[in-house]
Amino acid sequence: MNKLSEDEINKKLKNLEGWIYKNNAIHTSFQFANFKDAFTVMTRIAFEAEAQQHHPNWGNVYNELEISLSTHDADGVTDKDFKLAKAIEEIVEASA
Amino acid sequence: MNKLSEDEINKKLKNLEGWIYKNNAIHTSFQFANFKDAFTVMTRIAFEAEAQQHHPNWGNVYNELEISLSTHDADGVTDKDFKLAKAIEEIVEASA
Repeated sequence: MNKLSEDEINKKLKNLEGWIYKNNAIHTSFQFANFKDAFTVMTRIAFEAEAQQHHPNWGNVYNELEISLSTHDADGVTDKDFKLAKAIEEIVEASA
Repeated sequence: MNKLSEDEINKKLKNLEGWIYKNNAIHTSFQFANFKDAFTVMTRIAFEAEAQQHHPNWGNVYNELEISLSTHDADGVTDKDFKLAKAIEEIVEASA
């Protein structure tokens, strides 16, 4: 899996809603009604991440969820991250 | 719920394994075999946190879990945090 260039990353970010590229990773955050809703979405993302064998760097406080994606083996952002980001976007949209 | 003094916090920390007090919160971290094991424990903690209506500030990357507890309304550490910390300790021990 090849590390993407900054140009490639910025082009691919246009296909996502509300993600930014910084510190060698792509980042987003979500806010839900409460903890239960946040953790419900986290659970769906966890199953998807495990299925893809690609896992997020994520943090949660009550109704807030922050997610960063990068590919450790490539020391940067790869198509694996965009595949998981797309799945996350679909999970969050489906939960709304 | 009253904010505990640093002395009270340090006394109570002796009843826990591997937690430290800094930045107005108590902190710990755990390492599991893999993501699935980490998220299994997170799920159990999520149910406990929701039952206690007291929620962690936590982050996960693959098999690593970092947890910080503080009480927002008290602007510091309270007995609520030690109650949740104890439950987390029991959950993690039960999962080993």
